[in-house]
Amino acid sequence: MPRYALALEYDGAGFVGWQRQADGLSVQQVLEDAASRLVHGAPVASITAGRTDAGVHASGQVASLDLARDISTDKLRDALNFHMKPHAVVVLRAALAPEGWNPRFSATGREYRYRILNRRARPALAAGQVWHVAQDLDVAAMHGAAQALLGRHDFTSFRAAACQAKSPLRTLDRLDVTRDGEVVEVVAEARSFLHHQVRNMVGTLKLVGEGRWPVERVGAALATCDRRAAGPTAPPEGLALTGVCYPEDPFTSSR
Amino acid sequence: MPRYALALEYDGAGFVGWQRQADGLSVQQVLEDAASRLVHGAPVASITAGRTDAGVHASGQVASLDLARDISTDKLRDALNFHMKPHAVVVLRAALAPEGWNPRFSATGREYRYRILNRRARPALAAGQVWHVAQDLDVAAMHGAAQALLGRHDFTSFRAAACQAKSPLRTLDRLDVTRDGEVVEVVAEARSFLHHQVRNMVGTLKLVGEGRWPVERVGAALATCDRRAAGPTAPPEGLALTGVCYPEDPFTSSR
Repeated sequence: MPRYALALEYDGAGFVGWQRQADGLSVQQVLEDAASRLVHGAPVASITAGRTDAGVHASGQVASLDLARDISTDKLRDALNFHMKPHAVVVLRAALAPEGWNPRFSATGREYRYRILNRRARPALAAGQVWHVAQDLDVAAMHGAAQALLGRHDFTSFRAAACQAKSPLRTLDRLDVTRDGEVVEVVAEARSFLHHQVRNMVGTLKLVGEGRWPVERVGAALATCDRRAAGPTAPPEGLALTGVCYPEDPFTSSR
Repeated sequence: MPRYALALEYDGAGFVGWQRQADGLSVQQVLEDAASRLVHGAPVASITAGRTDAGVHASGQVASLDLARDISTDKLRDALNFHMKPHAVVVLRAALAPEGWNPRFSATGREYRYRILNRRARPALAAGQVWHVAQDLDVAAMHGAAQALLGRHDFTSFRAAACQAKSPLRTLDRLDVTRDGEVVEVVAEARSFLHHQVRNMVGTLKLVGEGRWPVERVGAALATCDRRAAGPTAPPEGLALTGVCYPEDPFTSSR
């Protein structure tokens, strides 16, 4: 059965997250239901590179679809986008996946971006896609504090209680905090992340940006290996999965 | 009675436009109703720099508010933003207006930006804030054609039938078409615009971008002075009023 690679964009609002759940609509369900219509209602299985949480967006999610049908990849993209209407999920690119490719296990890097709207007025145009923080943030302090988290560490202090990963060890490759006018952006890159890790790091860095925490306390919180030592979880609406890296680009081969 | 100057951001979806109308909610009504609550329910009058149409957004709208109350401008901004909840309208800045200042008649320039999402997949994250055009657009041709519209002309060919302006003469100072990845942006600057002028120019330039019109036809359509000679009206959701210019900055004086 051919395996297709899909690059996806979605607005996380209104979804219970990527993964199918009994109590609400998931991105996975919207995708698989649409794909099922291309094979006369037969069930279709997808695998994702990253199971985003409820309310978290994606501009560069990657998933696979095992489809018992030969279809041109342009047609597959357009047919899925048609059948996924009116949900805020679209396929940006589709390709025949390389032999043995798995979107989750073949991935060697994930990039997330977290956007904070840092101004007095609540968001109007960017509502639902930023975290609104009214107090002026010291971005240089946030960026400085963030650098203490780079490298291979036990990230228990930034890990959700519900996290199912076997090990709390992760290697954080990038955690940059920058400002563009009213928008403060945090870019995080790692091979993989723990559950809520990015949002917990952002919620902690915000305390530094507000001056409530000294810069050094972030590294100290990491060393404590205790979730209670770090800051609160930033809300989901500021977060987006923006890209997934593979040693071999899965989107080169069309048909 | 003190006159306050306000800079506003709003999402045009869900409004019948700036101006009060009997058949739906306007931005003006949301603003004036919120302001009225600051003066024990007395009516409050506002004037705007530009009466945006239904569905058109703003990130730099300017309006005045005549309020029978002395209030610090920070408090005015925060109180209006509180009372305008949950509507997607916010005051970005408030100031005491200079003597004799009128947001409409004192304005010497307006800037609008029109965003086209130019890719196969419909928008998910930018839904409601872009015009989706699937066919690949030739941005260089669009920009070239746009330059024929610069300067002082009779813009009857790009003017809505309902336009109430006395004269169809306008001076277009800038009409730039650029691409940033999948987003094609049209920036238009003039002292003032006719009703639907920007959307009619964009709808016409799109025909050039698609190769359906030669570049020269846009200047020819202008010269014809006949609305039927130009292209269709681009949809409102791609358009935003991004700025208004004044000889004297009305936002310098706080209290």
